[in-house]
Amino acid sequence: MADEDKSKKLWGGRFTADLAAPALDFTESIAADSRMIAEDIWGSQAHAIMLAHTQIISEEDLREILYWLEHARTEYGAGRLQLRPELEDVHMNVEVFVREGAGPEIGGRLHTARSRNDQVVTDARMHLRTRLLDIGEALAALQEVLLEQASQHTETVMPGYTHTQHAQPISAGFWLSAYASMFQRDQQRLAAAYERTNLCPLGAAAIAGTSFPIDRELTARLLGFDGLVPHALDAVGSRDFMAEALSALAILATNLSRLAEELVLFSTYEYGMLELPDAYASGSSIMPQKKNPCIAELTRARTGAVIGRLVQILTMLKAVPGGYNRDLQEDKPPLWDALDTVDGILRVFTPMLAGTSLNTERMEQLVGANFAAATELANFLVRERGLPFRTCHEIVGGLVATLISEGKTLDDYERVQQLLAEAGEELTVEEITQIVDPTACLHRQVSLGSTHPQQVGAIIENLQTAVAEIRQQLTAARNQIKHARHHTDDIIQHVLASSPLSECEM
Amino acid sequence: MADEDKSKKLWGGRFTADLAAPALDFTESIAADSRMIAEDIWGSQAHAIMLAHTQIISEEDLREILYWLEHARTEYGAGRLQLRPELEDVHMNVEVFVREGAGPEIGGRLHTARSRNDQVVTDARMHLRTRLLDIGEALAALQEVLLEQASQHTETVMPGYTHTQHAQPISAGFWLSAYASMFQRDQQRLAAAYERTNLCPLGAAAIAGTSFPIDRELTARLLGFDGLVPHALDAVGSRDFMAEALSALAILATNLSRLAEELVLFSTYEYGMLELPDAYASGSSIMPQKKNPCIAELTRARTGAVIGRLVQILTMLKAVPGGYNRDLQEDKPPLWDALDTVDGILRVFTPMLAGTSLNTERMEQLVGANFAAATELANFLVRERGLPFRTCHEIVGGLVATLISEGKTLDDYERVQQLLAEAGEELTVEEITQIVDPTACLHRQVSLGSTHPQQVGAIIENLQTAVAEIRQQLTAARNQIKHARHHTDDIIQHVLASSPLSECEM
Amino acid sequence: MADEDKSKKLWGGRFTADLAAPALDFTESIAADSRMIAEDIWGSQAHAIMLAHTQIISEEDLREILYWLEHARTEYGAGRLQLRPELEDVHMNVEVFVREGAGPEIGGRLHTARSRNDQVVTDARMHLRTRLLDIGEALAALQEVLLEQASQHTETVMPGYTHTQHAQPISAGFWLSAYASMFQRDQQRLAAAYERTNLCPLGAAAIAGTSFPIDRELTARLLGFDGLVPHALDAVGSRDFMAEALSALAILATNLSRLAEELVLFSTYEYGMLELPDAYASGSSIMPQKKNPCIAELTRARTGAVIGRLVQILTMLKAVPGGYNRDLQEDKPPLWDALDTVDGILRVFTPMLAGTSLNTERMEQLVGANFAAATELANFLVRERGLPFRTCHEIVGGLVATLISEGKTLDDYERVQQLLAEAGEELTVEEITQIVDPTACLHRQVSLGSTHPQQVGAIIENLQTAVAEIRQQLTAARNQIKHARHHTDDIIQHVLASSPLSECEM
Amino acid sequence: MADEDKSKKLWGGRFTADLAAPALDFTESIAADSRMIAEDIWGSQAHAIMLAHTQIISEEDLREILYWLEHARTEYGAGRLQLRPELEDVHMNVEVFVREGAGPEIGGRLHTARSRNDQVVTDARMHLRTRLLDIGEALAALQEVLLEQASQHTETVMPGYTHTQHAQPISAGFWLSAYASMFQRDQQRLAAAYERTNLCPLGAAAIAGTSFPIDRELTARLLGFDGLVPHALDAVGSRDFMAEALSALAILATNLSRLAEELVLFSTYEYGMLELPDAYASGSSIMPQKKNPCIAELTRARTGAVIGRLVQILTMLKAVPGGYNRDLQEDKPPLWDALDTVDGILRVFTPMLAGTSLNTERMEQLVGANFAAATELANFLVRERGLPFRTCHEIVGGLVATLISEGKTLDDYERVQQLLAEAGEELTVEEITQIVDPTACLHRQVSLGSTHPQQVGAIIENLQTAVAEIRQQLTAARNQIKHARHHTDDIIQHVLASSPLSECEM
Repeated sequence: MADEDKSKKLWGGRFTADLAAPALDFTESIAADSRMIAEDIWGSQAHAIMLAHTQIISEEDLREILYWLEHARTEYGAGRLQLRPELEDVHMNVEVFVREGAGPEIGGRLHTARSRNDQVVTDARMHLRTRLLDIGEALAALQEVLLEQASQHTETVMPGYTHTQHAQPISAGFWLSAYASMFQRDQQRLAAAYERTNLCPLGAAAIAGTSFPIDRELTARLLGFDGLVPHALDAVGSRDFMAEALSALAILATNLSRLAEELVLFSTYEYGMLELPDAYASGSSIMPQKKNPCIAELTRARTGAVIGRLVQILTMLKAVPGGYNRDLQEDKPPLWDALDTVDGILRVFTPMLAGTSLNTERMEQLVGANFAAATELANFLVRERGLPFRTCHEIVGGLVATLISEGKTLDDYERVQQLLAEAGEELTVEEITQIVDPTACLHRQVSLGSTHPQQVGAIIENLQTAVAEIRQQLTAARNQIKHARHHTDDIIQHVLASSPLSECEM
Repeated sequence: MADEDKSKKLWGGRFTADLAAPALDFTESIAADSRMIAEDIWGSQAHAIMLAHTQIISEEDLREILYWLEHARTEYGAGRLQLRPELEDVHMNVEVFVREGAGPEIGGRLHTARSRNDQVVTDARMHLRTRLLDIGEALAALQEVLLEQASQHTETVMPGYTHTQHAQPISAGFWLSAYASMFQRDQQRLAAAYERTNLCPLGAAAIAGTSFPIDRELTARLLGFDGLVPHALDAVGSRDFMAEALSALAILATNLSRLAEELVLFSTYEYGMLELPDAYASGSSIMPQKKNPCIAELTRARTGAVIGRLVQILTMLKAVPGGYNRDLQEDKPPLWDALDTVDGILRVFTPMLAGTSLNTERMEQLVGANFAAATELANFLVRERGLPFRTCHEIVGGLVATLISEGKTLDDYERVQQLLAEAGEELTVEEITQIVDPTACLHRQVSLGSTHPQQVGAIIENLQTAVAEIRQQLTAARNQIKHARHHTDDIIQHVLASSPLSECEM
Repeated sequence: MADEDKSKKLWGGRFTADLAAPALDFTESIAADSRMIAEDIWGSQAHAIMLAHTQIISEEDLREILYWLEHARTEYGAGRLQLRPELEDVHMNVEVFVREGAGPEIGGRLHTARSRNDQVVTDARMHLRTRLLDIGEALAALQEVLLEQASQHTETVMPGYTHTQHAQPISAGFWLSAYASMFQRDQQRLAAAYERTNLCPLGAAAIAGTSFPIDRELTARLLGFDGLVPHALDAVGSRDFMAEALSALAILATNLSRLAEELVLFSTYEYGMLELPDAYASGSSIMPQKKNPCIAELTRARTGAVIGRLVQILTMLKAVPGGYNRDLQEDKPPLWDALDTVDGILRVFTPMLAGTSLNTERMEQLVGANFAAATELANFLVRERGLPFRTCHEIVGGLVATLISEGKTLDDYERVQQLLAEAGEELTVEEITQIVDPTACLHRQVSLGSTHPQQVGAIIENLQTAVAEIRQQLTAARNQIKHARHHTDDIIQHVLASSPLSECEM
Repeated sequence: MADEDKSKKLWGGRFTADLAAPALDFTESIAADSRMIAEDIWGSQAHAIMLAHTQIISEEDLREILYWLEHARTEYGAGRLQLRPELEDVHMNVEVFVREGAGPEIGGRLHTARSRNDQVVTDARMHLRTRLLDIGEALAALQEVLLEQASQHTETVMPGYTHTQHAQPISAGFWLSAYASMFQRDQQRLAAAYERTNLCPLGAAAIAGTSFPIDRELTARLLGFDGLVPHALDAVGSRDFMAEALSALAILATNLSRLAEELVLFSTYEYGMLELPDAYASGSSIMPQKKNPCIAELTRARTGAVIGRLVQILTMLKAVPGGYNRDLQEDKPPLWDALDTVDGILRVFTPMLAGTSLNTERMEQLVGANFAAATELANFLVRERGLPFRTCHEIVGGLVATLISEGKTLDDYERVQQLLAEAGEELTVEEITQIVDPTACLHRQVSLGSTHPQQVGAIIENLQTAVAEIRQQLTAARNQIKHARHHTDDIIQHVLASSPLSECEM
């Protein structure tokens, strides 16, 4: 668009001055919109087909419009479609492309019975749904690696921590599968966000619907949506579905940050329980011995980015009047950024974890070193000697205090025997040995969901099934979108071949 | 608890010094816990019944424990149970109540096969689920008022706004029902949060499960849960269900803030489109003519509180190692506060809206005053004269610019006719009158979900049905909880009457 | 760097596998670093000069190093320096440029006695300080426009609002100058952030300082810093100065959002008190009569972005261990983004406000229409009739209620006279006229800082002086940086001319 | 206040219905206001004195008003003043107390020339300033403990960490003093927030100033303020000073959370470098051997609370129109809560740190165990052998890799010698021993601010001086407030003794 032509822009009618260049820079949304070019073209194709199907435009006009939209799509696919910032957004870019091709007379009919208000949120929903599927799949891959690693370590003992202090012996498989279990709820939240995303607002027009006899359900079907957002004012003015997606991402990011924190911790020299793969760790420019868990550190840090993006959209929405306001344009930058961030984390976490090796010797050494089995000793007294739990707790607590002051551990079986005897409880050394043995500890935890190898095995299996089901749902959702795209393609080819629209299944 | 007794506290065994008084103040959670007394007692009752049912404790011990738990419940119901801060939390308070009553021997058995780690999150889930139901019901009541008001105004014209500028004529019913439509998604999010809340972690013990042969499913059933959180480490260490509930509340609050903003705006002198009820507005100490929309203003402001609370829990969770850490204690203050805030807003919003009267004359006056029907004129030219949309847009844009410069509006039919003629389009005054009449405008919007009175009527009906369904689900959830409580009561009465536990259905 | 060469990267020594490509993508910081190329080169130049001055490297090595650094600077200035992502960050890019030019023997000496840890935070401080000066200046320009506009309207009456309701007559100059007054505190916060930013961490090395006898004060001086961050561990590990800058920006953004909100409000059809310039407003694609305050709307919305970025950095810093962690790399993206956002707002706000015209007739009309002078009537009774304030409040409150019910205003002087008489207070119509006249109201507010034209005039003058002082400080800070750059340049030219370093003033 | 009296409330004049009970609950601010009773009374006393001094009220009226205000103050001091929620806020409570005592005629004059709008922000500023001084002092105490501990450990070696990996030997004194250094910037931010807080808005009245000839500077002086907020509209409508205080608190909290994180880490079994005092740690109900760093954990967690509160106030302020809106009432809850939280942390951190003992043996053991001195070896080669840094880095990196693969450390001097020789560098075992000795490492770091004991000693001294200066400033600020209170008291006693006001110095 030439400079002298600027005042002729779309809404120039009543304006006596052009938009100032800095104002154009400030208000354009090309960067965020550039992700939605494919969606915008598809949306226009479906809209045009519907306009012809409802006889609002002629089949000749449709053919011309579809010709130029397909051309735009090809150009875009070949990386040759440049969005022009002076046209403000992706919608005007695509429309102007058609108008310049088909001429203003015919091209000008494409925008009948729609508005940029319903277009932009349609495009955004189409783009978001795909990204949610991507993230669901990337998360499933991470869960699969966690469960695979976990299944190899249901008998590998390590200290279970609370307050970052040794609490009880657990298995490494139990530890790893806990994250797969957490992430399953993230999958559910992503699916819930998807459900409220994949609904079609197109046809709401500016805010009030339109006086043209459009068929909103047809457009929705052609675009692969699960249904409509019926209320026109709600359809163009609401962004809570985006805030929900961002919430799901922020919660997922905090869950990831907890795993990241444990990876940092457990790979320190002091813990030494695991070693990250060289291909997913960094060194230092001045300290040659360093092997830095940079991916885990950056994951921790980028959690802040996702939380910040959630705050951004919620603050943006706070006290904005209903209906469409320009404020809503600021919905996409935080959303795209958060999607990229979480997607990026998942894509490196999966191979990093797959390549991480557990130092099972160090794990075993630590589990015996610091009284992790003390609870078991107390439980034994409750179970076998019939003492109240609180009494046993006091006996064992005193015993531990004495051992610490003597520089001993629970592996000093004779001393333990002696101290128990002093507290009135006679146990054999064999009993004590068996009680405090970490592997025996695992095997004694019989309750559902406990660290017992069988329980962990069952949980792993259940989670594997659940992840497989999620994968099926994600695939089904992808297929629905793909089929809708093919359906639209078939109609386009039919029309471009000058065949009557009435022959097409709609 | 006497001062000299402090070192005898529960975990005193290995400690040589008492917890300093400021440290106790810093770490106790009595204020947040005091909301969960009923839940903690119920949880202990169910746990004790299960322990006896699985023969981990005797029926005699059960009877004594249940006696004192019921006593605690009665004391609490009568407002006579004071939590003692030196006991740190609600769990120790209830347990010590039982131990002081039943003696340490028997009372000490209550804590068998559980930990404060699984107790606290069980209590919190039980409390949260009830509050989510409360909020769901309060929101349904607000939706019902909105829909009732909307149903009376499907023919009341008002300006539809975009960018806070007049856009198109809509009906007040269309405007009001848009919020009921938005809130329906909030209902869905609350229900989703409920689903992930109402699962039982009890039996996870500290982190690893327990060596006692407990029956987790029985406890879950007695407490009215829908199922378990099976993985023990996940069960005690995860708080994402709380973050999800807070997200749902934060999004609901932003939706409410948008309605609040419009109430403030539309009740200004300048807009004058509605009047708040005196009983829900405030005056000024120095300016007697003021009628201030304080409830709407505070709602806007308190949205910040809810968003801040969401940030609080997400930041708290960021990079906390898995399993239980004391950090997690800080989950409840933000959650309770956000629940109170949103609940408080809903409870005043519903009567305030019910008492709000629309100034339909002012609405009608405004809708005609500022070219809201200009789109309709453009659409007429497209539809009836077959011109491309963009051309019509330019014609009408120029026409509006001229009218503004002349201080005229679209109601100056002759001038409009003249200007259209100059642009090459001949219309009769009757046609113009009909096109720009706001009520006629409403009736021309034929698309699904539009502002047409029939469409709005249909949307209102659909939403009323949807709200009724939500109400049914909420009632069903409440009943499940109530029945579980009754079931527990029946067993307690049975046991207290010294009848054998085996006679009870479990 | 060729692909086979990757394992030779800086810290490759102990690594047996190359960094995986996705891991490199995940960890590189080229995008955020690309803003700091000039700073990184300058930092290296100053460091190299200091190394030679302290005889840690030879003057010959210095000459070679400076030659290549100047070359890099020229390439960068000409837009020909492309950062290579496989080199991870800007520091390695610049250093490798020198090493490739000067050879590994000499080029390898540049990194003596420094680390990327102190380099990155030095670069960031240098870049941030400049951006803070930019924003200070852009804000001063906005204040100047506000004060200029205000000075023209010290006698222009408009309603003063509280709760978005008419409260008292004020002048438009009073209204506009309030924002200039608020922004003055933002200037102070920006200046405080600058103070804590412009301190030099270079020489802290990795975390512990260095065993080379460096001269940290010389480097700081050459780089235009005001002083040092002495403690090495603090110097490399702290980012609170960035959080402070982001806080200052977030608060400034909220202040701007309040002005934006009033611009949106006052430019509605209903208020009609001001008109935005066409060059800073947008139209609608479907509604030709619209003139949308998009810049103000986007400003409102982007406040959320800045708040979100503040949350991001605070969350990132939460619970990160002291010293350097990779997490800290995530400091710059939020900072740069927030600086851009606020800078962008200021750059459009100033011309937009300069072009905004007040509709003084509408202002005057509104101020008389809704009892804004009621307080004045009450104050008259207090002052002249000696009644207690609360009694007068009740009299006037009742009078207003009656007038509203009769559809009258305070301009119905006879009715007002009559109602006052009924309440026991006899006033002449002349007295009443004078009391409720808006202009007379302004002139009666005699207190310091009131809306009285003289008071507003005095405030405007004081603020103009204060803004001029800020401008001087900003200029002085800029000059200090500029002189330091020139000083460095002079030394470089001297050295490149093979003259001895000892001749240079340091 | 009897129920039938409610419609007579202050602003009842034009209202036909009482405020509904839930609306009153929703809008009252008694809880947050109850902290400002002393300030509100003092503010009223100063205001009344000023009114009499400027002859707006008589000295007789002043005497009566002061009598009842002093009475209120005594009642409050004795814990007998109960705020009545039906009076909405603290201002009405105090005023009604005076009116009920002095009668409506005289009591009603107290509110002359002021509004609740300027009162509330005056009270809040007075309360906030005191809390900022409290926190400054508590932080100074923490810094003093850190510096005291640091001064005892300038020669105690420990590993310096980056990426939670061993980087270089540092001293424990260096580590601890880094936090004292960070906190010094927090002191500066608190002081900056104080500066913008301690300014007097009283006299701004509702928004526009007043027609009474008040003396704002006198009131400000009597209340101990440093100056005025001159612009009336800005004075009542701005809360950025609160957002600034909250920012300073949030940044301080994140700095504290970093120290907390290191305390958690270093007190684990695995690190074992420090032991928290029993009086500031907790045990476990089920695991007797635990000693949990609960205070550090809760500090980490509560950082989220403070960040959340900052988000709350920023979101509240976002897009609120200028001047006073009821939204601003929501400023105090987050502010008070954040002040309490940070104050609480500081009050336990100081004694906890004072009682923490360092395990210097473990520190020494760790520093030698994992190549922390590798950088030093590289630096030696640069310094003494004249090799480029990058070359040395490669040599040492390879050497470390070999040692790791052989299960050796740098303490295997012969092997190190051998490997260096293979790389072409001949060193004696004595040289190597000296280079890698951790204590020798400390002593070699000669740069300003390094971990060298003398450097650390100098930094500690400088920081002690700086903290002492902060203490002096805090004391001076406290004294100014105390003197102003005494000055007001003297005038009150003088007036109550029926002596003429003109005899008082003002």
